[in-house]
Amino acid sequence: MKYSKIPSATITRLSRYSRALEELEAQGYTVVSSEKLARQCAVNSAQIRKDLAYFGEFGVRGVGYVVKELLFQIKRILGLNKTWNLAIIGMGNLGFALIDHSNFPKQGYFFVAAFDIDPQKIGRKLSQGFEISPMSDLERVAAERKVEIAVITTPASKAQEVADQVVKTSIRGILNFAPVQLHVPEGYPVHHIDFTVKLDRLAYMMGNIATEPDDKKTS
Amino acid sequence: MKYSKIPSATITRLSRYSRALEELEAQGYTVVSSEKLARQCAVNSAQIRKDLAYFGEFGVRGVGYVVKELLFQIKRILGLNKTWNLAIIGMGNLGFALIDHSNFPKQGYFFVAAFDIDPQKIGRKLSQGFEISPMSDLERVAAERKVEIAVITTPASKAQEVADQVVKTSIRGILNFAPVQLHVPEGYPVHHIDFTVKLDRLAYMMGNIATEPDDKKTS
Repeated sequence: MKYSKIPSATITRLSRYSRALEELEAQGYTVVSSEKLARQCAVNSAQIRKDLAYFGEFGVRGVGYVVKELLFQIKRILGLNKTWNLAIIGMGNLGFALIDHSNFPKQGYFFVAAFDIDPQKIGRKLSQGFEISPMSDLERVAAERKVEIAVITTPASKAQEVADQVVKTSIRGILNFAPVQLHVPEGYPVHHIDFTVKLDRLAYMMGNIATEPDDKKTS
Repeated sequence: MKYSKIPSATITRLSRYSRALEELEAQGYTVVSSEKLARQCAVNSAQIRKDLAYFGEFGVRGVGYVVKELLFQIKRILGLNKTWNLAIIGMGNLGFALIDHSNFPKQGYFFVAAFDIDPQKIGRKLSQGFEISPMSDLERVAAERKVEIAVITTPASKAQEVADQVVKTSIRGILNFAPVQLHVPEGYPVHHIDFTVKLDRLAYMMGNIATEPDDKKTS
């Protein structure tokens, strides 16, 4: 399987398919047509078939997909049959919003540590059962709690310094919410979440609807 | 220009190109090669040329792109030469994190109103110069302040009710942070931000690096 040839947009869509399949499973569906799955995910059914074709043959012609089976296969592809340990670095509003967000544990992502540099925050007990640690304990706590991913929610001005510390520990990847491009050693996995990129897509869509009323299906 | 044929992944990448061009401009670059721009955006240069080709001819062979000009053109395509008025609905940790986030005004998105149902929050003055309004004032405040986009940061259990209210006002689009699929009238623009989808991509990348050390370039 040539993983390196798989477009990253396909990986993003696989996540969406898995979210939709979970909802369908919760609603009691055992089988779903590619058309219905496509509608749930706001893509067309040819796209789903093309995305899945990278990984093998799925589905039954004229019937569709067995929900439980396809969900299992997609999770296997995405490596989601394992759970991941996360640390959050920067306990401001965003840090608290994320650590309390129910989606993370539901999708197999568990916060096991939190860090800050503010003496007023360090030592504060969180509802997750652990305390906010000082940044000076990053290496030790990350190793002890087997942290795999660091979620950076510091101000932009602190994020690079934090990333420099993270890459020296046993933590193997970064999800960056700070509005700044991080420089890390080549090959070190980093993803950046920029909320405004989604707003650009929405604005583009709204602009198009306003000026071209027949082109509603843009996105 | 057949906007309806443009892949939404292209629109997302255009946003990234514009962010990178802004950085380059700030660093004093007047011209940039497609290779350098591609490295900044973590795509290959053929992808940039393909994305831009949807909208016309850009760049000079053997030279590259004039930074200021390409930035202007991309912003025009994305409709970003106008600014947008946003309202935030749900002033919990995430609401406060977003309203204080410096990236929004920098990219032309201005929060002009905030709403909550909690009597303890309603009336509280924000650093942005306005107070948190009660949900019952949504229609009036949205019209008066010309709100164009609603950013929903309520708990999942409240988000659909809020969306039902939003679509009845003059607000024309929704950015949804609540972990739930919203049902809105057909053609009404909604984008959903699910943080865990990005984590899936990161996890997929990390899993691949672990098992296939030669395939680092996956994403």
